[in-house]
Amino acid sequence: MILSALLTSVGINLGLCLLFFTLYSILRKQPSNAIVYEPRWVAEEKSEQRSQFSFERLLPSSGWVRRAWQLSEEELLSISGLDAVVFMRIFIFSLKVFAFAGTIGVFILLPINYLGDFSDLANKSLDSFSISNVTSGSNRLWIHFCAVYVFTAFVCYLLYFEFNYISSKRIAYFYASKPQPHQFTILVRSIPVSSGISVTESVQNFFTEYHSSTYLSHSVVRQSGKLQQLLSDADKLNRRLVRLKSTNRARERLRRDGFLGLFGHKVDLLDYHEKKLQDLEDNMRIEQSSLVGKEVPAAFVSFKSRYGAAVALHIQQRVNPTEWVAEPAPEPQDVHWPFFSASFIKRWICKFVVVVTYISITVLFLIPVFIVQGLTNLSQLETWFPILEGILSIAFVSEVITGYLPSLILQMFLLFVPPVMLMLSSIQGHIAFSRIEKSSCFKLLGFTIWNVFFANVLSGSALYQVNVFLEPKEIPRVLAEAVPAQASFFIAYVVTSGWTGTSNELVRLFPLICNFIKRRLSGKAGDDFEVPSIPYHSQIPKIAFFGLLGVTYFILAPLILPFILVYFCLGYIIYHNQLLNVYAPKFETGGKFWPVVHSSTIFSLILMQIIAIGIFGLKELPLASGFCVPLPVLTLIFNDYCQKRFLPIFQAYSAEVLALFLSDQYTLSMLRAMQCLIKKDRDDQNDPSMVEFLNELVTAYRDPVLMPIQYSGRNDRNTSLLHAAEV
Amino acid sequence: MILSALLTSVGINLGLCLLFFTLYSILRKQPSNAIVYEPRWVAEEKSEQRSQFSFERLLPSSGWVRRAWQLSEEELLSISGLDAVVFMRIFIFSLKVFAFAGTIGVFILLPINYLGDFSDLANKSLDSFSISNVTSGSNRLWIHFCAVYVFTAFVCYLLYFEFNYISSKRIAYFYASKPQPHQFTILVRSIPVSSGISVTESVQNFFTEYHSSTYLSHSVVRQSGKLQQLLSDADKLNRRLVRLKSTNRARERLRRDGFLGLFGHKVDLLDYHEKKLQDLEDNMRIEQSSLVGKEVPAAFVSFKSRYGAAVALHIQQRVNPTEWVAEPAPEPQDVHWPFFSASFIKRWICKFVVVVTYISITVLFLIPVFIVQGLTNLSQLETWFPILEGILSIAFVSEVITGYLPSLILQMFLLFVPPVMLMLSSIQGHIAFSRIEKSSCFKLLGFTIWNVFFANVLSGSALYQVNVFLEPKEIPRVLAEAVPAQASFFIAYVVTSGWTGTSNELVRLFPLICNFIKRRLSGKAGDDFEVPSIPYHSQIPKIAFFGLLGVTYFILAPLILPFILVYFCLGYIIYHNQLLNVYAPKFETGGKFWPVVHSSTIFSLILMQIIAIGIFGLKELPLASGFCVPLPVLTLIFNDYCQKRFLPIFQAYSAEVLALFLSDQYTLSMLRAMQCLIKKDRDDQNDPSMVEFLNELVTAYRDPVLMPIQYSGRNDRNTSLLHAAEV
Repeated sequence: MILSALLTSVGINLGLCLLFFTLYSILRKQPSNAIVYEPRWVAEEKSEQRSQFSFERLLPSSGWVRRAWQLSEEELLSISGLDAVVFMRIFIFSLKVFAFAGTIGVFILLPINYLGDFSDLANKSLDSFSISNVTSGSNRLWIHFCAVYVFTAFVCYLLYFEFNYISSKRIAYFYASKPQPHQFTILVRSIPVSSGISVTESVQNFFTEYHSSTYLSHSVVRQSGKLQQLLSDADKLNRRLVRLKSTNRARERLRRDGFLGLFGHKVDLLDYHEKKLQDLEDNMRIEQSSLVGKEVPAAFVSFKSRYGAAVALHIQQRVNPTEWVAEPAPEPQDVHWPFFSASFIKRWICKFVVVVTYISITVLFLIPVFIVQGLTNLSQLETWFPILEGILSIAFVSEVITGYLPSLILQMFLLFVPPVMLMLSSIQGHIAFSRIEKSSCFKLLGFTIWNVFFANVLSGSALYQVNVFLEPKEIPRVLAEAVPAQASFFIAYVVTSGWTGTSNELVRLFPLICNFIKRRLSGKAGDDFEVPSIPYHSQIPKIAFFGLLGVTYFILAPLILPFILVYFCLGYIIYHNQLLNVYAPKFETGGKFWPVVHSSTIFSLILMQIIAIGIFGLKELPLASGFCVPLPVLTLIFNDYCQKRFLPIFQAYSAEVLALFLSDQYTLSMLRAMQCLIKKDRDDQNDPSMVEFLNELVTAYRDPVLMPIQYSGRNDRNTSLLHAAEV
Repeated sequence: MILSALLTSVGINLGLCLLFFTLYSILRKQPSNAIVYEPRWVAEEKSEQRSQFSFERLLPSSGWVRRAWQLSEEELLSISGLDAVVFMRIFIFSLKVFAFAGTIGVFILLPINYLGDFSDLANKSLDSFSISNVTSGSNRLWIHFCAVYVFTAFVCYLLYFEFNYISSKRIAYFYASKPQPHQFTILVRSIPVSSGISVTESVQNFFTEYHSSTYLSHSVVRQSGKLQQLLSDADKLNRRLVRLKSTNRARERLRRDGFLGLFGHKVDLLDYHEKKLQDLEDNMRIEQSSLVGKEVPAAFVSFKSRYGAAVALHIQQRVNPTEWVAEPAPEPQDVHWPFFSASFIKRWICKFVVVVTYISITVLFLIPVFIVQGLTNLSQLETWFPILEGILSIAFVSEVITGYLPSLILQMFLLFVPPVMLMLSSIQGHIAFSRIEKSSCFKLLGFTIWNVFFANVLSGSALYQVNVFLEPKEIPRVLAEAVPAQASFFIAYVVTSGWTGTSNELVRLFPLICNFIKRRLSGKAGDDFEVPSIPYHSQIPKIAFFGLLGVTYFILAPLILPFILVYFCLGYIIYHNQLLNVYAPKFETGGKFWPVVHSSTIFSLILMQIIAIGIFGLKELPLASGFCVPLPVLTLIFNDYCQKRFLPIFQAYSAEVLALFLSDQYTLSMLRAMQCLIKKDRDDQNDPSMVEFLNELVTAYRDPVLMPIQYSGRNDRNTSLLHAAEV
């Protein structure tokens, strides 16, 4: 790729970014778009109502940028929880890394690589700015060598600092947290059931016998797939009904009952929906009564103290380790198990199936990527489609195709991957949204690195070299040959996927269009909207991948660094804004996503070092190549230390809770200690809130489908009686 | 190697074995050898005294074989503990495997491989009996293919059965065990010490605060290296004194005080030793008093119940996981830490140093092995030492050299390895003999497989192919070419190292000679002998390696199987006898050595399958080669299941103890429950023995060097007063 092609691509994307920013500035001020751009505030009914038309509404403004920039970490923590803070720390960390790398890269490495004439700059190949331009055996390469060492040391220092910082944040977060049901609960699976005894009795017997002083209650898991569907339908219907009742305009309540409300008889929607809801409720009651028998040998067991839960978690293993398998319970609203299985063997088999499927998907995905690669090759395209020859000969079109189209098509394909990975992770046996997302995070990261980085690198230069991974000795040489050749592709990728992709995140084009269509069709939108949550599993791998590109190309093609730095700046502003206005946290893992970023950075460093070993070898500087060999080893040792030093804080939630709340060893003293922490002003004679909490805990993990049904205006007393009877 | 050379080697070794058996039969009846052949009974003073000379003493007999054969598992368990039982299970397991493999190998595979004429059998190369003799593409190879599948399935079944059996044994053993100090104790390291507070106070504060209901006592670790030396000297001297006093013959008490008792003045040994002992004691007292300050930030912490210890072990992790690092305590007599370190960082660095050293040693060791390989090549030898030409041309000599010498020299080199591995394992930071031995076991196994198996296989055929391990794709082909070529070497190895080595174990040549020399010199032996313990760390890898040879060569050269079967029969008899008469257990791990054997067998299976893939490829049967590919995967999956199913039982001692003694959750009920288990006849009103046990527990982990010194006939009351004061 020549410089002018790159500049075209940068120009197009810069234009798109500006367009998106302007669009956002205007669109966000339209009241009808509030549920797209400010769903959090709409849900909390704090959104400013700008129903009157004013000219100001049509002018772009930049006040939101200032607000996003000024958002402090404490504010973010109180608004969106620790996970959001950790998410933003990825940007801060990356900005630090690439500010340093960019300075070295642009002011030291780039001039050294170039060292040529400045005539005809526009037609210069981008290779002139990369390490390929340095003559073999040149002593200038020693500067690159030093850069590798300095950069590694700097990144390791930052990684340590960041891990330490986030650990302390996590600890502080737990210190400050109120008692939460999942801290007091464990999930027990593979409960052995003898004939004649129900699972409930079995659990009751086991825990009252062995954990009598701390055991509080339990709720057995039931097969409730069908009921869950009914419940979510009823929920939706109910929400719509509430909205309908609140709007007093009779006109809106009349609607045709046929397809999309366009055909059929006119009916009163209120009556129509109420009747439907009642039917649903009856259905659900029948299901509920039939469900009692469908017990699964798994149960949520709650304890009177965090200490009790942790002891049971670590200790209640029986002689046969495949029975009474315990794991920490997720938050009640976080529970999600479309593929829940209580049996040890089944889960074990599922894991293997998932691993095999994951590998197959990752390998098969190469095919579309190769086609995309073919598109960047103009002459190939002309051979395939001779008709296009005329169009492709236009300079601008050819520049668009080489500079922009390939990565766009790649993006389209990549869109389908995150849902598949989520599916795989849930089949794998994770029992909570947060854990499924974390597992998908790792899967997607591996997928992206393989399919975007390695596939492009190896297919671009020599497709048949994919089997280099079967000859470890050859890896540095092959990578050193192939990676620099793809520098221009990845610069274009950063600009397209990074810049425009992030700006698109700001405008939320897809939800905007959906909202528009819905509003046109149903007249009034927003009767059943949900506040979205940030999809960590797809965002974190994307961000981490740009980090990987930057680190890998740091010495090879430092020209990429400014573009990456711009990407992280954009990301910092935009995600701050989105976390503030759009996304509400669905769960709280307490920063458990950080280790993903740490691992990915370590991997990037090692990849960079291996390529450095290869490139110094290729450039006939075997001494430098040899001196680079200790680097990956040192990096791995550093990583091992970090894992030992910090990972336990992130892993076993309960091991740590006990360190933090060691004083809650005995229920009574715990009650007091925790009360002191939470509300200093309460007298510590009796602890009504804690007692209340423990009462709530009893029902926290009851399957929501088993709760008494109370939509259609029945008597409330009736329901609470039912409730009381069950408790 | 031709058949006659093999037969020569077998003949020599069979002769040696018979010689050793006869020697043993005679020597064991000589009273002076009792401390060599029956040290256990001498120590317990149960050895039959045959002081009178009788003619029967000079006749070989075989009664001991019958006795060893008839020894049941229950008897062995009561005599030598569970570790010895598990050790013997290795032989039983191997006998089952190779009885099956031998039957298939000798009666099905061997005839198929041979299928030739029987003329000039003596000069037939051993290759005629191996798979190399089957023509490429022959359909007969499908029988080998079936054999691989059937054998894998059979071994996996046996592995599962055995793991299950030993797990149940381990559990039964714990059920039956009396309360032991190490079950109630943990070792805590990296105790943070603030200025002004001693380690003792720090531990006391921590555990009384957070584990107040279960905490019993603790003893801080001290730097006592010098004192330990003094103590062991004093111990030895004291034992000698006791012996001297018991022998009333004045003549023996007079001896010269110079070199080896041969020169110098004649002195009364009793007075001489007593004076020396008193000096030592005074030295020790001075050391003891100076030791109080030398506290190390580590301590043994004892609890009132197993439950308390397990809870503290799993839970007392603090916010910083590198502080208050807990691990289960070993048995008091098992504690051994020449390189103890309390600091987390130091131990972490030590581990890395050990890993690097281990790899270097393993690689450097190849040099002597290559020299040994050179010796098997007669023409090479003649070129090096032309003088030998005459001798080497004698058929017998050349057969001895090719058949016997190489493996003997290899053995000599291998003798030095186990102590080095022990040293490495103790530097690594293990704190008990048992753990050091287990770690060395793994190290030695890896060392043996690499240096005996791979080095011979790869150097014998093509030395330069060592770097095949950098090209994973090539491994099956290279191994399939190289491994069958070394079949004759390994048959000779089994006969030499296996048969003769094991018979040598019976005769205990080295201790016998030592004992003889000592008796000659000092007139009377046995005044300071110790009952030896079986060196698991060197024996288990040796036995496992013969298993590996048998499994690997099962389809390649089934001729090796009968020899291996004989080896395991010999081993079964001989080790039964030695466990009965010679070795006393030094520690009890409860069968923790079994997972080593399991892993080694899985590794052997996979190696065999990889070679099968390669050999079917070489023999132009790609279909069979392809159908073998799922085998290693299935084996690994099977292994993963076994690890999940059984390993937790072997790993965390305390996690399991709690499952077993779950009823000892509260001290009082525990006291009763355990008493019931141990002694049904004791009334459970008050539990004097448990109280006594807890009293003993307080001092169980006190450094022996800090105990009051009481050798030279001082007043006993004095010591016990001291003792009481310390408690």
